[in-house]
Amino acid sequence: MRKNLGVQPALFPMPVVIVAAYGADGSICAMNAAWAQICAMDKIALFIDADHKTTKNIMETRAFTVNIADVSNMAPADFFGIATGNKMPDKFERSGCHAVKSAFVNAPVITEFPVALECEFAEEIETKHMHAIVGRIVNVSAEERVIGDKNKILPEEVNALIFDQYRSGYFAVGEKVGQAWNAGKDLMKG
Amino acid sequence: MRKNLGVQPALFPMPVVIVAAYGADGSICAMNAAWAQICAMDKIALFIDADHKTTKNIMETRAFTVNIADVSNMAPADFFGIATGNKMPDKFERSGCHAVKSAFVNAPVITEFPVALECEFAEEIETKHMHAIVGRIVNVSAEERVIGDKNKILPEEVNALIFDQYRSGYFAVGEKVGQAWNAGKDLMKG
Repeated sequence: MRKNLGVQPALFPMPVVIVAAYGADGSICAMNAAWAQICAMDKIALFIDADHKTTKNIMETRAFTVNIADVSNMAPADFFGIATGNKMPDKFERSGCHAVKSAFVNAPVITEFPVALECEFAEEIETKHMHAIVGRIVNVSAEERVIGDKNKILPEEVNALIFDQYRSGYFAVGEKVGQAWNAGKDLMKG
Repeated sequence: MRKNLGVQPALFPMPVVIVAAYGADGSICAMNAAWAQICAMDKIALFIDADHKTTKNIMETRAFTVNIADVSNMAPADFFGIATGNKMPDKFERSGCHAVKSAFVNAPVITEFPVALECEFAEEIETKHMHAIVGRIVNVSAEERVIGDKNKILPEEVNALIFDQYRSGYFAVGEKVGQAWNAGKDLMKG
């Protein structure tokens, strides 16, 4: 039996990403975002409000990084979602994390997190239904320990967090269960 | 040590959702999409090309469902990503899946999948950087077996697939590791 549950943002799984940007004064702000997604092969859309300190920083410096949060950094990742940079000027320092400037864009790469998408600001989209900050991915950097053959990232090693919007839980990624363009190929035979 | 990997759509995890819509003639088309995300509390954005049969159906009937693919339906979920409705008119039938019309919108709910977001078409966004189909979530329906207390969905029971864009793998969801707004609260004390 199926049950109707009303209107809710019921997508699952969602990623946990830490968006980081310098302000005009060189300070760093970072925030936790679950509503982010690739929107083209070299673009990422962040559905974040305009009044976040990090959003203001992005508009000032026209660059940001998207750092993939892993299980071992769950505490700072969650902290980046609780604290607000508008009221806590030393938010980034208090997270205990560290950053280095990207070699490609004017934005901080958080060194504790295993993978970063280094982005130039591309556009802000505001419609009746959506507010999005879109970035052009200029480079992806990753810790060597999460990189496998052919320079491809190993999801098993990233140990990324999953956000559960239903109950605000964090989950780990489980085992590999199949391969795309293979798992369903028998059905192509008809 | 960190390594630069160039430009790639390196977000992880991504969901696996099957977008389904009726055509004007009542036929069903469905496709596998990984680039989907909630963009407001009652909205979902699909980053899918305009030339998919399912996209054409959405534009005709102004409604669609977003069905969350689970591990037990990996084969049809993957098939929905391999086959194209433009060349295979009986794509939905060949998947082996079944559908019933949503009680809220003019779109098919795929009965095999545990959770469906039932959406009215809200807008199509086309900019230099993004093509998005945005839906307004009118109802979420789910199998009773995946619903827990307070009518909230249990991620542990959904057994959702994860898409790994790095290597085109499918993963299962692992164990719960923490709770948002709690895991990082000690850092608030400074």
